[in-house]
Amino acid sequence: MALPDGAFGADAQAGRQKARQCQTCHGIDGIARIPIAPHIAGENDIYLITQLKAFRSGKRTHEIMSVIAENLSDEDIADLAAWYASIEIKATIPE
Amino acid sequence: MALPDGAFGADAQAGRQKARQCQTCHGIDGIARIPIAPHIAGENDIYLITQLKAFRSGKRTHEIMSVIAENLSDEDIADLAAWYASIEIKATIPE
Repeated sequence: MALPDGAFGADAQAGRQKARQCQTCHGIDGIARIPIAPHIAGENDIYLITQLKAFRSGKRTHEIMSVIAENLSDEDIADLAAWYASIEIKATIPE
Repeated sequence: MALPDGAFGADAQAGRQKARQCQTCHGIDGIARIPIAPHIAGENDIYLITQLKAFRSGKRTHEIMSVIAENLSDEDIADLAAWYASIEIKATIPE
């Protein structure tokens, strides 16, 4: 099943492969495995692209994300964002 | 049903009330309504507390969040984090 393209004709399927480096903290499904990492499942690709570029430029800093983002190309960022944006999420408010 | 307390004995029910100011961007259920805002449903309270304090201190900046966080007390931050952490989320990976 072809995944919907994200912003800028990104390739979510390529993003799925590139996301292997993210799984330790952000989980296979984008639900964070560690308390200092955010869930990124179903996150809007524009938000993700903005944050990854902020980590890459230094506008936003984090000891791990700054290092990871340093080597990401614009295409990597668009593909990763398209992949995580393609994950469906459902929220249930407590009664 | 009493909500589970978050970190630091926070009051998720009080956080639910305080979250009214967040709903325009982050949605009633923590699923963002605008592409520049992140989903915060089910987010780990430690992550949320860290981000809100970063916006309050200026370590992290955003035209809207910096203004909102400026007036939040530590108790407000803990309550808001406990509320959003109490929202259940489920992620479904595309085949």
